[in-house]
Amino acid sequence: MGKKKRAWRSGCPLNASVEILGDRWSLLIIRDMMLRGATTFKDFLEGFERIATNVLADRLKRLEQFGVIEKRMDTRDGRKTNYKLTQKGIDLAPVLTEMVLWAAEHEDTENPELVAMMKKDRKGFEAGIREEWERGRGKATMR
Amino acid sequence: MGKKKRAWRSGCPLNASVEILGDRWSLLIIRDMMLRGATTFKDFLEGFERIATNVLADRLKRLEQFGVIEKRMDTRDGRKTNYKLTQKGIDLAPVLTEMVLWAAEHEDTENPELVAMMKKDRKGFEAGIREEWERGRGKATMR
Repeated sequence: MGKKKRAWRSGCPLNASVEILGDRWSLLIIRDMMLRGATTFKDFLEGFERIATNVLADRLKRLEQFGVIEKRMDTRDGRKTNYKLTQKGIDLAPVLTEMVLWAAEHEDTENPELVAMMKKDRKGFEAGIREEWERGRGKATMR
Repeated sequence: MGKKKRAWRSGCPLNASVEILGDRWSLLIIRDMMLRGATTFKDFLEGFERIATNVLADRLKRLEQFGVIEKRMDTRDGRKTNYKLTQKGIDLAPVLTEMVLWAAEHEDTENPELVAMMKKDRKGFEAGIREEWERGRGKATMR
């Protein structure tokens, strides 16, 4: 599979996951790509949680280095950059689903429509995300 | 359900999850409780990733504040403190499973036995963790 050798703190797979994703923002950026169809720097800045410009730039760079997202030139405007999830990035859908369901169960959160959809037909929900992604675009399904 | 009102950055359930768990260490501490039966401060310090004492103290405090773990007096030695997952903490098993499977698929990691077990019988694996937890103890199943 050509996996890269990296200097992990341990060989535990969970450790690799938290080294890549263990911060306040990375999974929110991935969520915005998966569920809100965010592709540009501006799209991410407009997320609900108001990420700071410098933090966003840093996280996008890291996610790209880890092969979770990739940069593409905008086909209509070569000066613009679009971000897209890779296969590796889209494979995070089940991680996101479990984290959403856990918080919805135990914390006072919003967006019950999303949670209900995930609970009712989890596999269908994840398949839908993959389908959208394969069509090369995203649709807003999340507030 | 008596969920606490908190000042989240947004109402999105995923945001609540990353506000609680989004750092390099929290999920590793939970892993050590779930899979290595860690209960004492010393147990956590001996984890594979060599967490620093001050970071560990901070994370344990945060996880306790969020109701993911709880502190108990050692029944044999009242001066000692044990940490235990709450129901909310044990409910993180599916999140951990997905993160392990994702990294095992996409990164060069170790512990193929754990990954094989999760893949072969995911529900059985998670049920086993719950069972161990309900018996009030943990067993080492992870390197």
